Amino acid sequence: MKIILIGSGKLGTQLYKTIICKKDLDIIQWVVRSSKKTLTPEGIPIVQKIDKQQNADVYLLAVSDNSILKVSKELPNNAFIVHTAGSVPLDIINQKRTGVFYPLQSFSIGRDIDFSNIPIIIESKIKKDLIILKNLARGIKATFYQMNSKQRAKLHLSAIFVNNFTNHLFSEAALICKNNDIPFNLLKPLIQETIDKLQTMNPKAAQTGPAIRNDRQTILKHLKLIKDPLLKKIYKVLTLAIQKNDVQ
Amino acid sequence: MKIILIGSGKLGTQLYKTIICKKDLDIIQWVVRSSKKTLTPEGIPIVQKIDKQQNADVYLLAVSDNSILKVSKELPNNAFIVHTAGSVPLDIINQKRTGVFYPLQSFSIGRDIDFSNIPIIIESKIKKDLIILKNLARGIKATFYQMNSKQRAKLHLSAIFVNNFTNHLFSEAALICKNNDIPFNLLKPLIQETIDKLQTMNPKAAQTGPAIRNDRQTILKHLKLIKDPLLKKIYKVLTLAIQKNDVQ
Repeated sequence: MKIILIGSGKLGTQLYKTIICKKDLDIIQWVVRSSKKTLTPEGIPIVQKIDKQQNADVYLLAVSDNSILKVSKELPNNAFIVHTAGSVPLDIINQKRTGVFYPLQSFSIGRDIDFSNIPIIIESKIKKDLIILKNLARGIKATFYQMNSKQRAKLHLSAIFVNNFTNHLFSEAALICKNNDIPFNLLKPLIQETIDKLQTMNPKAAQTGPAIRNDRQTILKHLKLIKDPLLKKIYKVLTLAIQKNDVQ
Repeated sequence: MKIILIGSGKLGTQLYKTIICKKDLDIIQWVVRSSKKTLTPEGIPIVQKIDKQQNADVYLLAVSDNSILKVSKELPNNAFIVHTAGSVPLDIINQKRTGVFYPLQSFSIGRDIDFSNIPIIIESKIKKDLIILKNLARGIKATFYQMNSKQRAKLHLSAIFVNNFTNHLFSEAALICKNNDIPFNLLKPLIQETIDKLQTMNPKAAQTGPAIRNDRQTILKHLKLIKDPLLKKIYKVLTLAIQKNDVQ
């Protein structure tokens, strides 16, 4: 499979590093707008502008959500154009052959990702193009799930809760620890157990703590300890949500 | 070490199961208010009421926060009385010899806990009693950290964020998935990566997503997708907090 990869952000870089090692997948060109190099260390041509003359099986867009439409307009009309975004609908791209290849993971600079652990959400406008997306997923040893754009948007929303928001709660806890001379490391076994429980019970059944016990005394004690108004708000709204979820 | 264990809730049961297997620790009595049995399968006497005639090195209270004071009043004046609560100060107990032995973990029914992975937070009113708490922690192969009641209260507050609130975010995500025919399992690698990142970077550096990127378009899209007003509030307050945390 001949691939033109567009974008060298966190996801683009990880896709490059992964695809380059796979025998059935060939990156024939990497489009990196700001690059001053013309070749990668592995000998793949880097170009700054899209070159319509290339013949690729798939144009893989690892660009920001807001650039997908703009970039796709520069691509050939008969090409298969695939974006990698969680919350962008398939039909944002005007070409006839469009697809989505969304790796459900959070990418950070300097952190290599093993795609074999990542579910890839795929979708295509034309049914027969789905096989290309499946082969691309198989090629990087990933598992794939077919979903429509509406479902994918909801999955992306869920991902915000379990990753972005969860990580922020860790940030808040780390700050409380720092301000009170407590090593944040002490919390890591508890964090691990929070995750491990998901293997044997659903999160609703795993809920513990003062909110679910309706232990008003402890809740009031905590609210007294929190000085930052925004943190107090987070505490209150999550406590309320836990209690509401319990009576549903 | 002779121990009288009081309480048979989630923590009491786990402490019983763990201590019973350890050679240097002896439970000489287990106080279980509602028990109809008088002996455990391992041959330990169960009593419904506290028996002041016993001579124990430590009375270990695994009772609800609100019962600690009441239960301690029934105990001998010269006994070493140790509670296991995160947010209850040491001096709630009136006896001269008091201590805290707080296992920083979330306990669920039917889930056995390996104490060797758990930090135990210890504190004692009389300095020389600390050695008993250390030996108790060592006896169950746990690591221990000395902290005062104020720090412990803050640590307990942090634990609410990383465990209770995080788990609730998983609950919300599970509900979104369920309502849209998406298997919640798809999110598990992402959840694991959220935790794994903490091993190499602090949570503030690990933050990703539309909030930290200030990607207003995606944020508005998400808010449109959320129908439940309370969930919308959670989304908004956490998004705001991520953005505020970034400029701090």
